[in-house]
Amino acid sequence: MGGSIGLAARRRRIARRITVWGRRPEAAHDAVAAGAAHEAAATPADAVRGADLILLCTTVEAMPRVARAMRPGLARGALVTDVGSTKRDVVRRVGALLAGCATWIGSHPMAGGEREGLRAARADLFKGATCIVTPTSDSPAHGLRRIREFWEALGGRSVVMSPAEHDAVVALVSHVPHLAAAALVNVVGRGNPAALRCAGNGFRDMTRIASGSPEMWAGIARSNRTEIRRGLGKLIAELQGFARELTDGSGERVRARLNRAKALRDDLKSRS
Amino acid sequence: MGGSIGLAARRRRIARRITVWGRRPEAAHDAVAAGAAHEAAATPADAVRGADLILLCTTVEAMPRVARAMRPGLARGALVTDVGSTKRDVVRRVGALLAGCATWIGSHPMAGGEREGLRAARADLFKGATCIVTPTSDSPAHGLRRIREFWEALGGRSVVMSPAEHDAVVALVSHVPHLAAAALVNVVGRGNPAALRCAGNGFRDMTRIASGSPEMWAGIARSNRTEIRRGLGKLIAELQGFARELTDGSGERVRARLNRAKALRDDLKSRS
Repeated sequence: MGGSIGLAARRRRIARRITVWGRRPEAAHDAVAAGAAHEAAATPADAVRGADLILLCTTVEAMPRVARAMRPGLARGALVTDVGSTKRDVVRRVGALLAGCATWIGSHPMAGGEREGLRAARADLFKGATCIVTPTSDSPAHGLRRIREFWEALGGRSVVMSPAEHDAVVALVSHVPHLAAAALVNVVGRGNPAALRCAGNGFRDMTRIASGSPEMWAGIARSNRTEIRRGLGKLIAELQGFARELTDGSGERVRARLNRAKALRDDLKSRS
Repeated sequence: MGGSIGLAARRRRIARRITVWGRRPEAAHDAVAAGAAHEAAATPADAVRGADLILLCTTVEAMPRVARAMRPGLARGALVTDVGSTKRDVVRRVGALLAGCATWIGSHPMAGGEREGLRAARADLFKGATCIVTPTSDSPAHGLRRIREFWEALGGRSVVMSPAEHDAVVALVSHVPHLAAAALVNVVGRGNPAALRCAGNGFRDMTRIASGSPEMWAGIARSNRTEIRRGLGKLIAELQGFARELTDGSGERVRARLNRAKALRDDLKSRS
């Protein structure tokens, strides 16, 4: 994600100078070589020194550690945001660390795929993507405006919600679907591994995200476990509804569920 | 599907003459206009008169009706197959109708998408697609060979299984995933319709098939209900496993499930 932000920011000329820090120094140097940043810094504090806008692009689990490490370098008035997939937990933990040092408002651009690292970076990743920004009651209006403008300058569509609302929404449209994709693959793999060879494009499209990083997704699952459990409960209830209604002679109720889903999904298509 | 077969057969020059029949006469004439057939017939019996290979391309529910209607026209030695998404039910019902009239062996090409009708037809639809052929103990070897050769001539990869084995495999890789896609969309639509607007590409890819025909899929669901219920039970158990393990402090077991899914899905990718 960090690589795509750097490429997009440079292509659209919205940053005078981009400094990158990475846990692995080679990754930071690769980012510079790929044109995603102007220079690499040796530490998080060095990377943020003099910066007016700072993006935390790590797993949700690593964010507090990186936020703490960058504190000594933060300039007065610096604005910090992130790209983490959960927000209640991240906003609270990073917020506690940055209080008094910088203005902190969480973000979550709904972009990216199952591939990781710089090789998957794309300057057009944010084009048309929903970028959720999650201020709290403490967030200054100018900081919020600045962050929304940033995502929109990258080509995204910014949407504002509270961290709690974000976590509920994203559990439904991202976290639960991710676990469902993994569950589908596991069910086939356990029950009938040879069946995977018969899978058509529908199955491939549905399960592509199951190739995402288990490390990253386990962290997301833990961080948003309350909303994910709630969403899993709803999904299980809907699947149980299908299972129950399959024995109906007429098929009327199964068709009604499929009709509802088609109407919702067609509407999503027409808006994209 | 019928349109794609016609286009593919003509492009690859594997049929001397293709006659089409459709429930709606305009659809048959459109198929001729699109180059998917040489001529349209007024009845199923007229369509099959003199044909050596006949493809039933209707919903699984309509197949017995069409098979019965074409009986008067069947030539001695004609070979009949289909493209239905369930096989135990279809093979048995169509087999009973065609016994003594023609050689009947079921097929299921794992190709196609959520779009229907001639406008979605593509001559390359079968390229690389798994085409399952489901003979029974009564099926003559030459008929089976001929049908496998037909799908391979269209660019597919033919795989032989019994009708029962087909239904178990396809419940896992197609029918259950289809219902899961519809269930995901319904859960979001019911709980938080505005959330759909935040959906990224992962959700879109996962739920694309929910735009498929509810009519057709309700028929498939009814026809293969035993295997689908079994598959839904397995999927629900896997999702319950995730829900349970989300409360584990370490996240170790969630990560193990995600690791298993990634390994299986990556393997599928490397083979495609």
